[in-house]
Order: sequence, then C-alpha cells, then structure tokens
Amino acid sequence: MANKKSEVLRVLDKVKADGRTSLTAPEGKLVCDAYGIPVPKEGVAKSASEAAKLATSIGFPVVLKIVSPEILHKTEAGGVLVGVKNAAEARKGFDTILANAKKYNRKATVLGVQVQQMLGGGQEVIVGAVTDPSFGKLVAFGLGGVLVEVLKDVTFRLAPASKDDALSMLDGIAAAPILKGVRGSDPVDRQALARIIQNVSQLVSDFPEIAEMDLNPVFATRRGAIAADVRIVVDFAPADARYRPSHEEIVRDMNRIMKPDAVAVIGASSEDGKIGNSVMKNLINGGYQGEIYPIHPSATEILGRKAYKSVKNVPGKIDVAVFAIPAKFVAQALVEVGEKKIPGAVLIPSGFAETGNVEGQKEIQAIGRKYGVRLMGPNIYGFYYTWKNLCATFCTAYDIKGGAALSSQSGGIGMAIIGFSRSAKMGVSAIVGLGNKSDIDEDDLLTFFEQDENTQIVAQHFEDLKDGRAFAEVAKRVSKKKPIVVLKAGRTALGARAAASHTAALAGNDKIYNDVLLQSGVIRAMGLRDLLEFARALPVLPTPKGENVIIITGAGGSGVLLSDAVAENGLSLMAMPPDLDAAFRKFIPPFGASGNPVDITGGQPPKTYQDTVRLGLEDPRIHSLILGYWHTIITPPMVFAKTMVEVIEEMRAKGIHKPIVASLAGDVEVEEASEYLFDHGIPAYPYTTEMPVAVLAAKHKWARGAGLI
Amino acid sequence: MANKKSEVLRVLDKVKADGRTSLTAPEGKLVCDAYGIPVPKEGVAKSASEAAKLATSIGFPVVLKIVSPEILHKTEAGGVLVGVKNAAEARKGFDTILANAKKYNRKATVLGVQVQQMLGGGQEVIVGAVTDPSFGKLVAFGLGGVLVEVLKDVTFRLAPASKDDALSMLDGIAAAPILKGVRGSDPVDRQALARIIQNVSQLVSDFPEIAEMDLNPVFATRRGAIAADVRIVVDFAPADARYRPSHEEIVRDMNRIMKPDAVAVIGASSEDGKIGNSVMKNLINGGYQGEIYPIHPSATEILGRKAYKSVKNVPGKIDVAVFAIPAKFVAQALVEVGEKKIPGAVLIPSGFAETGNVEGQKEIQAIGRKYGVRLMGPNIYGFYYTWKNLCATFCTAYDIKGGAALSSQSGGIGMAIIGFSRSAKMGVSAIVGLGNKSDIDEDDLLTFFEQDENTQIVAQHFEDLKDGRAFAEVAKRVSKKKPIVVLKAGRTALGARAAASHTAALAGNDKIYNDVLLQSGVIRAMGLRDLLEFARALPVLPTPKGENVIIITGAGGSGVLLSDAVAENGLSLMAMPPDLDAAFRKFIPPFGASGNPVDITGGQPPKTYQDTVRLGLEDPRIHSLILGYWHTIITPPMVFAKTMVEVIEEMRAKGIHKPIVASLAGDVEVEEASEYLFDHGIPAYPYTTEMPVAVLAAKHKWARGAGLI
Repeated sequence: MANKKSEVLRVLDKVKADGRTSLTAPEGKLVCDAYGIPVPKEGVAKSASEAAKLATSIGFPVVLKIVSPEILHKTEAGGVLVGVKNAAEARKGFDTILANAKKYNRKATVLGVQVQQMLGGGQEVIVGAVTDPSFGKLVAFGLGGVLVEVLKDVTFRLAPASKDDALSMLDGIAAAPILKGVRGSDPVDRQALARIIQNVSQLVSDFPEIAEMDLNPVFATRRGAIAADVRIVVDFAPADARYRPSHEEIVRDMNRIMKPDAVAVIGASSEDGKIGNSVMKNLINGGYQGEIYPIHPSATEILGRKAYKSVKNVPGKIDVAVFAIPAKFVAQALVEVGEKKIPGAVLIPSGFAETGNVEGQKEIQAIGRKYGVRLMGPNIYGFYYTWKNLCATFCTAYDIKGGAALSSQSGGIGMAIIGFSRSAKMGVSAIVGLGNKSDIDEDDLLTFFEQDENTQIVAQHFEDLKDGRAFAEVAKRVSKKKPIVVLKAGRTALGARAAASHTAALAGNDKIYNDVLLQSGVIRAMGLRDLLEFARALPVLPTPKGENVIIITGAGGSGVLLSDAVAENGLSLMAMPPDLDAAFRKFIPPFGASGNPVDITGGQPPKTYQDTVRLGLEDPRIHSLILGYWHTIITPPMVFAKTMVEVIEEMRAKGIHKPIVASLAGDVEVEEASEYLFDHGIPAYPYTTEMPVAVLAAKHKWARGAGLI
Repeated sequence: MANKKSEVLRVLDKVKADGRTSLTAPEGKLVCDAYGIPVPKEGVAKSASEAAKLATSIGFPVVLKIVSPEILHKTEAGGVLVGVKNAAEARKGFDTILANAKKYNRKATVLGVQVQQMLGGGQEVIVGAVTDPSFGKLVAFGLGGVLVEVLKDVTFRLAPASKDDALSMLDGIAAAPILKGVRGSDPVDRQALARIIQNVSQLVSDFPEIAEMDLNPVFATRRGAIAADVRIVVDFAPADARYRPSHEEIVRDMNRIMKPDAVAVIGASSEDGKIGNSVMKNLINGGYQGEIYPIHPSATEILGRKAYKSVKNVPGKIDVAVFAIPAKFVAQALVEVGEKKIPGAVLIPSGFAETGNVEGQKEIQAIGRKYGVRLMGPNIYGFYYTWKNLCATFCTAYDIKGGAALSSQSGGIGMAIIGFSRSAKMGVSAIVGLGNKSDIDEDDLLTFFEQDENTQIVAQHFEDLKDGRAFAEVAKRVSKKKPIVVLKAGRTALGARAAASHTAALAGNDKIYNDVLLQSGVIRAMGLRDLLEFARALPVLPTPKGENVIIITGAGGSGVLLSDAVAENGLSLMAMPPDLDAAFRKFIPPFGASGNPVDITGGQPPKTYQDTVRLGLEDPRIHSLILGYWHTIITPPMVFAKTMVEVIEEMRAKGIHKPIVASLAGDVEVEEASEYLFDHGIPAYPYTTEMPVAVLAAKHKWARGAGLI
C-alpha cells in the first residue's frame, strides 16, 4: 500500500498547492484506483481499431465520448454513443463520432475517443465518509435514491472499519432485505460492497485531510460493485489533537481519586448551609475512614478536624482535593494542588463555561495539564464511592453498597439517580457528576470502572462526548467485561438544541451516536427511567447462555403483552420443541395454550408455577425465563414470590443460573412480592409487562455484544 | 352513479355466472370507468389514419399493439411499438405492425391495432382495498416499488373514505415527503390521488362482493393520476352480519346493567372462598345501596339476605344477574334470567370458548339473543361501578370514585388495573372485565360511558375487536367528547400469535388497527403502564387550547431530556417570541439559556419557579407547560410543590386553566412532592422525564382528534 499511499499524497499535494478544497473527477479516480475502489474502466482510443480493442478489454456495453478541448457540449455535437454492444459497433462508433465532430466544428482538435465501461442495472447504493468533531472519521452506507434520503436510512461506523464492521453495515439499514434480493431481483455482491466500505474507511483514516467523500451512486450487482461517481472534499487545516494520558496513567490517577486515602476539602466550612460544610459533614458522617484535611484561610479546626491554610501546608500525601470555593478562587488553589502533587481535583464550583466563562475554564485546564492534576467538573455535585464510604459531594449521603456505577453530565440527572437509587434500594459502587467535563470524562470513568472490583455495571448519562472516538475505543473493550448502559440526551433535533444551549456542547448527529454506541457494545437506554432500571436489574441477572427465551404465564393476557414486548425489544421466543411442549403440558390444564408462551391458565396453585419454572430452568435448551403472574386467592402474591425463590435457590444449588424476570398483575400486594423477588435475584415489576422484558433484553444485548451468546 | 352501479353489477353478475373469483383486465377497466378511476385511454384502429386519429385524441406518446387471436406473443411478432410520438409515427407504425404480423404469421386474422395511452414518469403508487374480518372494507395506499414493500410503508382507512380521510392517507406514510416533490422532482396531484382512493373505497363499499382490489402501479404526476394495472378479486359468499342492538337499546340496557337498582347473585354462597361468597361480600361490604338477591337452590338466607331458588321467584324487578355457578349450569339459569326479563347477565364462570367449549358459548349467546339479555363475559372477574358503590366481582372491593372508566379483555390485566389504581389512588368510575366477549364488548361500553356523567375518560385493553367497524364508528363519535385510550395487545407477530392461542380470536393486522384507531380519534397506549398512567393523568389535565408547549426547567439536563420526549411524543416546542423571551429572562440569571426550554438554572429560589410559571400561565400564546424540577436546598421538593400549587390556584381564580405536567429530579422527597402535585392538578413524576411528556402528549392528541385544537 506504500506506493498507493504516495500516489494519493501526490494528488492531495497538488490540490493543496492549487488551494482547492475538492478533487477533480480524474483525481478522484486516481485516489480510488490507489485504494482498490472500483470505478468504471476507461481509456482513450486514437483509432477505430484501438477503440474496438479497448472496448473488448473493458467489456461490453461501453460508452464512447469525444475527447476534444473545443467540444464542451459533447452530446449536442453527436460526440456521445451509449450502449455500444460489440467490437464492430465500437469501430463504427469511433468513425461516426469523429465524423460528427468534424461536422460540428471543423477546427476542433480531436484527442481521441474515450471508451468507458457502461454502468447501470444492479442496486444503487451510497458509500461515503464524513469527519465528525467528536468521533473523527466515519464511513457511511445507505441505498441510493430519493426515498432513502427521505427516510434517512443510512448507517455509520468508525473508520477504519473492519470487514465485520463493513458487513454489519449492509444489515444495519432498514432496507437491508433489498440487498439480499427481493421479488426475484438479484442479491448484491456483499463481499464487493464490504471491500469498498473498508477501503474508503482506510483511505480517510490514512489521509485525515480528506474531510468528506461520496461514492454516489455505487452500482452493486450479483458480481461486483462499481462507484459511478466520486466526490472528495479536503480540509488541510489540522484538527486539534486531544490530550489523552496513557492507560496506565489514567488507571493510576483514577484509582487514587476514586478510592483515596486522604481527601482535602478546599473551602471547608463550619457554617451550616455552606457547600464546604455539607462536603465535610458528608465525608465524616458517611463513615469515610481515610484522612480528611479541611483547607481554610483562617480556621484552625473545622468539625473537629485540624484545618490548613493551603494543601501545601498539609504534612501527608493527599489523593484528591474537593473544591468548595467560588469560581474566581479556583485557579490559584489549583496551582497549589498541583504543587502538592495531588492527582485529582473535584471542582464543584459553577461559573465556568456553562455561564459563558470559557476563558476561566481554559485557564484551569491549562493548570491541570501543567501539573498533571486530573479535573472532575467544574460545575458538579461531586462523587460517591460507596465501598470507601466516600461521599465527596454536597448532596445527601448514599450508603447502599453494590455493583452499579452511575455518572451524569447534568447535576439534575445526578439528583434523580440518587433519589431513584435510594428509593429502589439499589446497590451502588459509585455515582459521579461530570458537569462541564473540562478533563475527566466518560472514558476515564470507564477505564477506572473496568478494573474496579466493586463495579459490575456502568450506567452513564451524557449530552455529548468530548472525544467520542476515545469513548468508543474504551467502551468496546470494557463492554466485553461489564455491561455499559448509556442515556444519550439530545437525541432529537429539539433535544439537541436544548443540549447546545445548556452546555455549549456541539450536539452530535444522533444516528452517528447510535451506530457507534452499538458498534462499541454499549446498551442504549432510550429514557432516564430505563437507564435507572437497567442499572438496577442488570447486575442481578445472570448472563444468559443463549437466545432461547420462554414466557411462563398464569395470565394469558399478560402472555400476549409480554410477547409484544419480547418482539419489540429484539428478543425472540424459542420455538417450542414437541418433547418440551409435552413436558410442560403435563403440568397444566388441557385447555392451556401449547407452545410459547407456556400458558398455565389462571387459578393455578403454586405447584403449577413451581413445576413449570423448574422445568424451564432445568431444560438446557431454555436460556431465559419471563414470568407472568396473575394474582389469585389460590396463589397469592407473596406465596408466588416465595415459591419462585425456592425454585431458583434449588436450581442454584445445582449450579443452574439463568436470568428470570417477572411481571406481576394483581392488587397492591404484588408490590411487596415484586420487591421480595428482586431482592432474591428475580427482577420483578408490578403493573407493567414492558419493564421486565426491557431489562432482560438489555442483558441479552450485552451478552450478544460481548460475544457471550 | 345509478347507471354506473348497474354497469358494475352487470360485470359482477357475469363473473359470478362464470364461477370465476377475479375479473379480467377489460372487466376491471369497465368497473374503473364506472367509478371514475382513471385507466389508460385506449381504442382499436382498423386503419393507419384511424390509428393516427385515435392516437391524437388520446395524446402522445402512445403504444401500438397488434390485435389478433392468432398472435399471442406480440413482441416476438414485431407487433408492439412503444413511444409513438406523433400522428405520422402512428400512421407509419400501423403499417409496420401489420407488415410484421403478416411476415410472422401470414394466416393470422388481424382485428386491428390497439392504440393505448403510454404511461410512465411521475411517481408510482399503489391504491388497494381489502376485506378485514373485524373492520370490513378498508382502502389502502402506499408508494409503489420494492423498497416500500420491504419497509411495509402503507396506510389504511375504513371504506368508504371521506375526502379528508383520503388526503390524510397521503400524509400517513413515512415516505410522504416524496409525494410533495423532493430534489426537484414534481409533486403529485394530491386531489387526483385522493379521488382515486375515495372512488376505490366507494366501489368496495357499494359492492361487498369485491373482496380485494389492487391498482398497482398508479402513475401520479403533477397533473392527474392513472392506474396502469387493475386487479379485482371477488367473493360472492355473504359475510355473517353481526347483530347490533340499536343505540337506544344499548343505552337503556347498559344503564340498567352498570347502574342497577337490584342485583341477583346466581350461585350466592355463605361459604368462605367460594366465588359466590366473595361476590355477595363485595356487594354488601362495598356499600351497594340497591337490592341484593342471593339465588341458591336450597338456602333460605345468605349473609343476612333472603335467598331465592331462582330469579323467577324474586318478587321485584332485577337489573342484573351475576353468575357465580359452574359453566354447565349457566345456560339453564340464563333462560330463567331471560324469562324474568333481566336485561343483563354478568358471566363470571370460565369453561367456554377459552377452554375450547365453543358450542357452550354459542348456546348461551343464542339464549341471550332470544330473551334480549345482554351478556358480559363469560370468563370474567365481573365489574365495578364506584358511583353506585357496586363491586359485582369476586375481586377485592374498590371505592375511590373518579372519572376513569377502565376495561380489560383479560382477567390478569384487570387485576393489574385494580392494583395500580389502588396504589396510585386513581379515581375510577368503572372497571369492567370483558373476557370472551360473547356479547357486550368495547363499543357497548363506550356507548354507555359516553353518556355516563361520572366518566371523563375511557381506557380499554383488548386483544381483538369482534366488530372493529362498530367500535370505530362509536369511538369516532365518543372521542369527540371524552378521551379514549386503547392498549391493543398482540400488536407484534409474536404477540398476535399468543393472542390467537389465548382467546381463539383472530389477530388483526396491527397496521390496520393502528390506522383505524387513529382515524377514530383514539389514543393508543403502547404498553400497559402507559394505559394506566394515561387513565390516571388525563382527567386531571385541562384541555389545551393550542399546540404551543414550553418547558420551564431548573435542571438544564432535564430540559434536554424533556425536549427529546417532546419531539418523540409528537409535540413541538413553541418558537419563543422575542418579547416573551425577554419577559422570561427578567426572572432568570443572565447565563440561563434563552429560548425554549426556559432554563432558569440550578439553585434558584421558589420565586424564580413561581415568576416564570406564572408568566407561562398568563401569556395567552402558551398553551401547555412542562416543568423540570431540580432538588436543591434553596427550593426543596415540597416547597416547590406548594409554590406551584399556589400559582395554579391563583391562575384558576382568574379563569386560567392550562395543562401542566412536571418531572422531578431529586432525592426521595420528590416522591411525596409528586403526589402532592398530582393531587392538586399537576401530573408529576419522580425520576422520569418521559412520563410527564407522554401524558401531556396524550391529552394533546385527544384534543387534536376531537378538533379542539
């Protein structure tokens, strides 16, 4: 490819020298040739026999076109012949075109006749590339034609794309069945299309100055694919490279910040109602066992702890400094933090970019870089790390330890996380506010949570990604080990506008976010409640070992709604093998519906639920269970719940771990029963058939993305 | 149209006489001509000059085709000429075709040359009609082409369709922008397309024997539209007409059933755990003030009430009989109910169609029809009508009176309704189980609730509609007065399969349900929880007077998510007029984002919420408000809630009633605050930005459908 690269470079140098922003058609062809992107074969013939020879080597049909600097309107001059079918026609065509040209303009210099492969037929598709401010180079794919444009049916992948990425794009559009051939039409050559996608993505990755590229249309047939038209736009201004510490540095610093042995509170206060007071109280009352150093210009003691004028006066090592001082004093204090070699600053104060003080934010960023201090915020509530009993925040303490790590870009959403978690008694490892994200962002957190033994799932709310490419790269690796759930706010045009006005962040194209998140193995929550419920349920659910889902329900009506939810959430009900069907039917009345859902019918005793669920757990062909409970006198809610827990504990003792979720239809007692089930490893929900299936589907999505099923 | 009808009739008679199930192309053309559906103009010319004349009258280009019984392969015989552009070409073409024909087969009898208008260009669309078992005749519309088929982008309306219906179909497909012209292409002639849709829908309505019809493709251009190909399938077997009592009869009987003065309990029992015991207890303990007559073969008294052997022995009038006896005894008891002239039977027993006992169900249907007894069920939990303190069910009593009437096809879903309602303290007028729907169904209930002064909203869960057309007709009328929310279960292929196995009901095509429900002004809930939340919130919300929605938020992050939800729920944020923007900005810090959402910024005192919300309520350009609350020390949750209630009460006193919903982000205290707000007329939800917007959008949808905005 080295030679090839130099060819492209020569073209680009010429474009740059000319001060142009786009390539000419012949330049585009040269670039395509260099990167193995098929374009129509062509050549210039000087004689009739040469035309015939050339046409034969290209393959018929061909198009003949006059080449003459004086003849601009070729068609008008009779200088174009399409659909030339054989060598004889090519020979004759050459003469005809020459004769026509002479007739049209007897003074014209004729350089020859261009012989070009004639395209058409097959399926029109588009392959392109764009440069996104957050994700960098992306390759795009879609069908050609106006309808696709109207329906916005395109898909994106980070460039360079692997062969699998490229092939996945062919399935990533709504119109995918077209490519496989419908109503007797030919399927396209998937390998050929994937090669073009890969080569385009490699080209734009090798040459960052290629800002945009369009192959439109590409004609894809049963054998091969050819780009009929090439458009390349360049931008020679270098993009700012974002500074990223090494993986080792991130891990080292983030561990000290998130699990500190000593915390300084800059702006600590004895006065009730002050943020510096709340932070101190939360640290102390939260039960944090490390050192706490209040920093205050004059106080000698705050809440029973010795106070210091500056972090520099503190005798021991400090891992993180929590800032509870006004914005204008932050820079100076941050220099001292740097001089003290504290690796992290938690910048609670607002009054930076979010209020228009962009310069102030740049200043602290520069200080952070200079001294190697990682900055969390500014404009945040701080963070919790429960396993250290650490509440480095002015919000109320949170102490239910567990495996869910949550973060939010917005403070309001952070408060909703805390409220929901407390209300649902969700076990949490960390809750982190990222605010303006002047430095520490989602990928830094992911890198920490990846290796944090206390974290089993990461749930993140954000409005933008400062460095989407870094996020995607880290998420792709981390999601193989732990589920990552993301709520990307600002996904509609309206939401994006609000996002822009809120954080001055450039709102990303949602389709790009969507495709890249998927490509990175991230589970996307489509609403705040889903994010929270997924964070709560996913660590509870065992990993499914396959895609076979069954519904066991006492309420036929719930079975129908659960089936709807299964289809909508991208799960599929297992086709019931006859022997398994017969085995289930042994436990249920003869009028119970056969197949899947297993309809045990209403009014059944606990034993029927127990027998069928036990069978569902024991049979190795079944991977996940969805239960539909119907409140009856015969099987009251708590009896159902306890029966189910007995069964799964019996199975666990045998080493059988399968995800089970439950939807409880009944009177208010189902709320207590749901809670009991949840506490015992069965995510269960009253009055909804949607949520249990959504959380199960999220677990399946993760397992699929991580290559576990 | 009388003559026209007779022409179609003649064609159909011939088809029937021939024992055919479809029409020939010329027959199809006759039918289209009779109903003003444009098809290509054509005629047969006997001479070259006649061909030229005919072609000129049709308009160029035309196609010429040999007409000869001996020449089947016209093209092979050189008997077809396309793209004939003028009279001279037509004349010459006639001669050419004749010469070719002679050359091909000198013995062929040539009847002439068919001259046909040549179509092409414009946009290909499809207009069709189908017969649905529940909805009857439906007209369909979509774009032509394979892509549309793959994407299933078609829309349906009940036939006959009004002009407005027809026009709405052109906007009812995802590809609608194509019809308006994109990228320089012509817009289609909307009136011409709407006329074809209307005429097709009228045709199939006039002739029920037309089972299916396809105009595919129809070429729609800037001026006019022509059906290039017509396919008509007939079915002369008459469909069963469903018996429907008159509107007056339904109202009369349903009022006696739902608001009875005397109830008989057939199978009443003194024995705990029996259904007949639970029903008696619920009636008595629920506080029902009418007469209660226990019916029992031997008892003289049950729970302190005099018992009778048969309803026929009861001295007074009875309005409704609740059946709590095994299925096998129902028919006999029902005859007695009929003889006693009781207008309604509530058939709790199971053991009919749902267990395969289809004959048993037919038997009771026949008895009901014979005696004029309306049947509720069988296979139901019964029903509640709270304003009469009536709990005619074996489920636990429900006594929170209010405006929401709910019904469910499934018993399990009924239990979920009861549990959710009780938990949320939802005010309910009625909860009704419909089960097998042997007689009383959703449209009967709608007809009752329409005129029931205690009902403000109707929420219905169903898996199928026995008579979708009747439902649509009634819903279209009722929805103008009261919101109707529907959860149609079995909307995915998977769900539909479960529905079929559950109730032996034919699963409807979901797209048909969706379009007809929309056409009927019904709000469709996409999940059980939505159905319940809509039922709870809609009666609380005043009707918006327009579409202008604003978000006022203390949490910018919530503003972004609320904006996402606004777009996703089909609402739109009002473009903020500069004077109004300036007015809001007076109340908020300078760095608060301008425009809509109104971002009051975090950490504001109650007054800022109060001032901005008051302005939002007072300004007549604003029609609906969405509040995003962020929990802070300065404005704690209950302070926020009370402040908001003060403002809306102040405004109510001034006669200002606008819908307001709220999303509360904060610690667990936001739950209490949400409840307080809800109780005072502001549907409010903790930890979700989706639900408040969804309920507001449902109210807007209703107001739109009812023509109020």
